[in-house]
Amino acid sequence: MASVNRHYLELQGSYLFSETARRVAACRAARPERRIVSLGIGDVTRPLVPVVIAALHRAVEEMGQETTFRGYGPEQGYAFLREAIVRQDYQARGLDIAPDEVFISDGAKSDLGNFQELFAPESVVAVMDPVYPVYVDSNVMAGRAGQFRDGRWQRILYLPCTRDNAFLPDRPATRPDMVYLCSPNNPTGAALPRDVLRQWVDYARREGCVILFDSAYEAFVTEPELPRSIYELEGAREVAVEFRSFSKTAGFTGLRCAYTVLPRDVTLADGRGGRVALRDLWLRRQSSRYNGCPYIVQRAAEAVYSPQGRIETAADVAACQANARRIAQGLRRLGLGVFGGVNAPYLWVQTPQGLSSWEFFDLLLDRAGLVCTPGAGFGLSGEGYVRFTAFGKPADTEEALRRLALIL
Amino acid sequence: MASVNRHYLELQGSYLFSETARRVAACRAARPERRIVSLGIGDVTRPLVPVVIAALHRAVEEMGQETTFRGYGPEQGYAFLREAIVRQDYQARGLDIAPDEVFISDGAKSDLGNFQELFAPESVVAVMDPVYPVYVDSNVMAGRAGQFRDGRWQRILYLPCTRDNAFLPDRPATRPDMVYLCSPNNPTGAALPRDVLRQWVDYARREGCVILFDSAYEAFVTEPELPRSIYELEGAREVAVEFRSFSKTAGFTGLRCAYTVLPRDVTLADGRGGRVALRDLWLRRQSSRYNGCPYIVQRAAEAVYSPQGRIETAADVAACQANARRIAQGLRRLGLGVFGGVNAPYLWVQTPQGLSSWEFFDLLLDRAGLVCTPGAGFGLSGEGYVRFTAFGKPADTEEALRRLALIL
Repeated sequence: MASVNRHYLELQGSYLFSETARRVAACRAARPERRIVSLGIGDVTRPLVPVVIAALHRAVEEMGQETTFRGYGPEQGYAFLREAIVRQDYQARGLDIAPDEVFISDGAKSDLGNFQELFAPESVVAVMDPVYPVYVDSNVMAGRAGQFRDGRWQRILYLPCTRDNAFLPDRPATRPDMVYLCSPNNPTGAALPRDVLRQWVDYARREGCVILFDSAYEAFVTEPELPRSIYELEGAREVAVEFRSFSKTAGFTGLRCAYTVLPRDVTLADGRGGRVALRDLWLRRQSSRYNGCPYIVQRAAEAVYSPQGRIETAADVAACQANARRIAQGLRRLGLGVFGGVNAPYLWVQTPQGLSSWEFFDLLLDRAGLVCTPGAGFGLSGEGYVRFTAFGKPADTEEALRRLALIL
Repeated sequence: MASVNRHYLELQGSYLFSETARRVAACRAARPERRIVSLGIGDVTRPLVPVVIAALHRAVEEMGQETTFRGYGPEQGYAFLREAIVRQDYQARGLDIAPDEVFISDGAKSDLGNFQELFAPESVVAVMDPVYPVYVDSNVMAGRAGQFRDGRWQRILYLPCTRDNAFLPDRPATRPDMVYLCSPNNPTGAALPRDVLRQWVDYARREGCVILFDSAYEAFVTEPELPRSIYELEGAREVAVEFRSFSKTAGFTGLRCAYTVLPRDVTLADGRGGRVALRDLWLRRQSSRYNGCPYIVQRAAEAVYSPQGRIETAADVAACQANARRIAQGLRRLGLGVFGGVNAPYLWVQTPQGLSSWEFFDLLLDRAGLVCTPGAGFGLSGEGYVRFTAFGKPADTEEALRRLALIL
């Protein structure tokens, strides 16, 4: 009898966003007359900017003409996009990244979920707590997490990010092989300052770890002294892989495009006394199991780097940042403890009156028709918090604050 | 020191198409004045049909308007596309498949490469030989292949497909857990007749195997008595997963869309005496590690099912089929042994004078500037053959035949 990968059966509960969606659907069915306002899942709401739309139409036209049609593209992504990324996101900031160290994909979620395959099965994983669930779930599927007891996986090293450490992770007591750092963080909204990131890079070099740096929200950083890329830190080229996305930067959540930066200097022990470049392993993985991001989508992403694309997408990001400030201000007026929202589209909000995350989630949903995301879904240290996002329409923000004022 | 998944280091040589591309590039550099004609990689050359282009433009417009913009879609794919697929590819043929048993993705290569993750690591894999390399490579990465000796993985069960068995695989001597069947086959072009497929379905039910049925070339079947879906066979809903693609059916190799059918009745042993539905495992996998196919691409795929889309894409498929017949006829006139090409866009051609696959590949490339794909790259039983594809332009077919006549 064919048998299952038993690690899939060890996965806990439903995926966070599926479970919240289920509860929202149940609530909607129970009270169909009430409009639900969501500050929950981190999805964008503004349409794609005009320069991206124009690039898509042009690329679609190319696909309809025999002389300009494109079939299979390079699995790593087209050079025109990889070169635009390197020029503007790295070389313009003085960072030494080459186009063949950039891999285009359909999403940071796919890359972050699949990347762990390159590591030995017995590798030890460290994650910030709370954090985006994909890092842990993909390592559970691969059998790296051990037993689940009292809300935690026994082989995962959790790096608590709480009020006490300003939501900035300390080094763990024992050495991990892979460290997932998410900065600006989803869900806490905290971005790693330069000195903290330097400590991590130095630690990784000393201890022989690889840092998997999820930087999907880099565009939302407002404080100029914060690093925008891990490669601003000396030595990061030896130990860090950086994951970026167009989802939040340019509203591509429904269009699907992201990229991963793999400097050639990041290597793993090959078990025979030598080293092997992660970049080459990832190329092999993607060549064998992926066929590249659609040509038309890569042209859309390229347009984000045009002068007009920069202006248009920056305006959308600024609108989201303004929305975040408005939400933070409103929640504070209601007496809630609010963190984040300055360098990230996420606000990390303490539940009142000792309510649990899910209790506060259910309260807001039932009594105010308002959707947030329960902090506990991101890890044990997320208990007692909920996440609000700033991607919504300003009118919804005002409506949400008005409803909250009635029940809090 | 962080260590590599050692199974990646066991992978053999370069990926077939990368290696052929490398040799072609070297040849082009050496003789830049000569135009190279490719009947090699199975990529389409005709532009997307007008109804698909129109659907793309409409969907792009939607993405540019606030009221019609779409962010994250369902990981499983939009209902409009899953319903169109079920209605036309299954229910119209009397086959019992439900929309929630269909999963949309960016490609059959991704799905076929990732699907093995759901199975126990010690599962035994059977593959046709020769065959598309992704099945084996993804299982090597997962550690299921054992040692590589004399051109074969010791734990993989190879099902030789040769002239002797009309390129139709027999059951193996020992029982596999997973059986990859590719029909119409890439590279041999052979499609499994109903009685052969029935034997496989019966075998899988008796032995508790899962059949992973790669049917990416189903649209090219011309013989009416051949099954178009494995679900035409009684009991297949209990044992078979079907992989389909728009790549060759509708020229989507650069647009990226495919689907996988997972009937709820296909289950795996859960190691605790129970059963778990593969469909639910795949939903969990995709929800955790994939964010869905772009909305605009799903609208393009939906357009393939419109009455006009059917007409336009069928015309392209028919042109390819005509091209296949022309190539087969021309090669036979030159004295070569030719198989396939009737129910598939692939022709499986015996090398002359006892040449090896790569020798014949190099001969055609060096002396005629002609690209094919070496059969040995698809498995040991592919030695002594090369694959020609019929996706090219008719003018290139004529040019290729003219050049071949000069050197053979």
